[in-house]
Amino acid sequence: MSEHSTPDLLKVLSGETLKRPPVWFMRQAGRYLPEYRALRATAPDFIAFCLDPEKAAEATLQPMRRLPFSASIVFADILLIPGALGQKVWFEAGEGPRLGELPSLDVLEGEIEASTFKLTPVGQTLSRVRAALEPERALIGFAGAPWTVASYMIEGGSSDRSKARTFAYERPEDMDRLLDIVARASVRYLAMQAEAGAQVLKLFESWAEGLPEDLFERIVCKPHRTIIKGLRDLGVETPVIGFPRGAASLAQYYAETVDVQGVALDTACPAHVGQAIQKTKAIQGALDPLLLRAGGPALDRRVEQLLDQWGGGPYIFNLGHGILPDTPIAHVEQVLKRVTGQ
Amino acid sequence: MSEHSTPDLLKVLSGETLKRPPVWFMRQAGRYLPEYRALRATAPDFIAFCLDPEKAAEATLQPMRRLPFSASIVFADILLIPGALGQKVWFEAGEGPRLGELPSLDVLEGEIEASTFKLTPVGQTLSRVRAALEPERALIGFAGAPWTVASYMIEGGSSDRSKARTFAYERPEDMDRLLDIVARASVRYLAMQAEAGAQVLKLFESWAEGLPEDLFERIVCKPHRTIIKGLRDLGVETPVIGFPRGAASLAQYYAETVDVQGVALDTACPAHVGQAIQKTKAIQGALDPLLLRAGGPALDRRVEQLLDQWGGGPYIFNLGHGILPDTPIAHVEQVLKRVTGQ
Repeated sequence: MSEHSTPDLLKVLSGETLKRPPVWFMRQAGRYLPEYRALRATAPDFIAFCLDPEKAAEATLQPMRRLPFSASIVFADILLIPGALGQKVWFEAGEGPRLGELPSLDVLEGEIEASTFKLTPVGQTLSRVRAALEPERALIGFAGAPWTVASYMIEGGSSDRSKARTFAYERPEDMDRLLDIVARASVRYLAMQAEAGAQVLKLFESWAEGLPEDLFERIVCKPHRTIIKGLRDLGVETPVIGFPRGAASLAQYYAETVDVQGVALDTACPAHVGQAIQKTKAIQGALDPLLLRAGGPALDRRVEQLLDQWGGGPYIFNLGHGILPDTPIAHVEQVLKRVTGQ
Repeated sequence: MSEHSTPDLLKVLSGETLKRPPVWFMRQAGRYLPEYRALRATAPDFIAFCLDPEKAAEATLQPMRRLPFSASIVFADILLIPGALGQKVWFEAGEGPRLGELPSLDVLEGEIEASTFKLTPVGQTLSRVRAALEPERALIGFAGAPWTVASYMIEGGSSDRSKARTFAYERPEDMDRLLDIVARASVRYLAMQAEAGAQVLKLFESWAEGLPEDLFERIVCKPHRTIIKGLRDLGVETPVIGFPRGAASLAQYYAETVDVQGVALDTACPAHVGQAIQKTKAIQGALDPLLLRAGGPALDRRVEQLLDQWGGGPYIFNLGHGILPDTPIAHVEQVLKRVTGQ
């Protein structure tokens, strides 16, 4: 790849400060786009949709055709890993994910190697997208982080994670082993994604909120370190963005102790926390998806404020959480125009 | 009151560091106690129960009889204010609060004065409790903070507050006015509680989580300042504890900009945030209620850790959130024994 076409996202993750930050949105391939809704209607089962390289590549590319995003993120789901490890996963319309009974740890352990093969369609999606995408636009692969994935596996679906946190307190050895199993499956899955064309890898710790700091260290930071070490041991040097969502007060600790190249910040992260992290690595975030949906002059003001407070260091513009399905596309265009200056 | 009987809670809120911190638990009068469940069964309507001074005083005193808590908090509910302002409030068994349609701001405004009179039973509860309580045990009054109360009023019940936050973005003037109405009603309500015997007042901002810092300043800090100024203007010098739950990364900002005497910290607040606040005021918190329920050696270790990390400054031992209904009383006794050394 020529110097000319190095994607801005990779420049920022190697520590560069750009005049205009690269920009992408979490869930940018999704329900706010009518073409996505039409495509999704052709495949009633969500997991099957994620594992259909033709459809998943098309969903990944849809926002790239109509919007000037700097990067593309593979269309997939953080619950593909539990499914590949043999736990039943399905989606009830309008209700979010459901998971069957948690298999024994021995059974899960025995499925780690096979899980990667079951997820090869995600690699095929990445290869298709990489072939279609302009070289200056980066391609991102991802996995759910171990605590978040384990909490779904324990709770059987979306929840306040109290059952999973109680599991961490009452059965610490089993929890540590479950986290380790998910981490090892994730290393193989992410390495396969890098091999297939992902230039950046993101770890989604969607449920880092509400954890006491000793638990945050044990069930968030430690498994993240396991994954990054596992990737590096395999020779995968792809930059990693970590997203400890809901843990702004511990984001600096995370940045200091986990060897990620970028830290994604959530909606509630104060300016000074991001600035402190920017002294040593890139940050990403953190427009409120509710403000994006609401639009108007308050949206413009907040975009300018984010560019002002974080644009002086390595910065990737993004939302603080996924885009909401009923967000007007015009609001997305309004923000992208401000951020890209085009 | 003699020097001898000044409650430890008041000493700490005036800046003293005690060898053993005072201790109380949020929702210490509640469903984990069989005597509470028996009392509650005599009054099917929860709001009516809160507004029955005899029953509410009994509920307040129940935990004080069997457990060595340093302070007592009046049995009441943060949704008494919307009810007193004329919005319908009721509780569905097992479902949490429900609220009727939000009255117009003009109607709410017109009800501020009358609301305080409707809440005089809470003052009667406080007087009864104060008369029965040993002088060395402090009595706490409280109100929900304006954003939390307003979010219930807008959402019509428990929720992710996305409707209320959207209201703040799309109708900023109406939101500011609603917050101001709740703040003014709360000033009168809290002044009445102080008059009736409350020696400490607590502002419960139960839903401070997930707010961008500009919104946190506008809808959390500013209304808190309005309430404290309102109290001081009325000559009420009672110390105030503010609880911006879920906003650990902004707790120090809160402590610096809101003239509270104590800041209550939640389960996820890191040690260093509390230590920074302790340089100028008292802190309270922050044992995980899930760990209290789980019990065992991990509970003992965490209690020691909290005492170590915060015991060197003005500190009130508490949970990071309310005690869970299915918490074994033996676990509460185990913690109180460690904290009080008795």
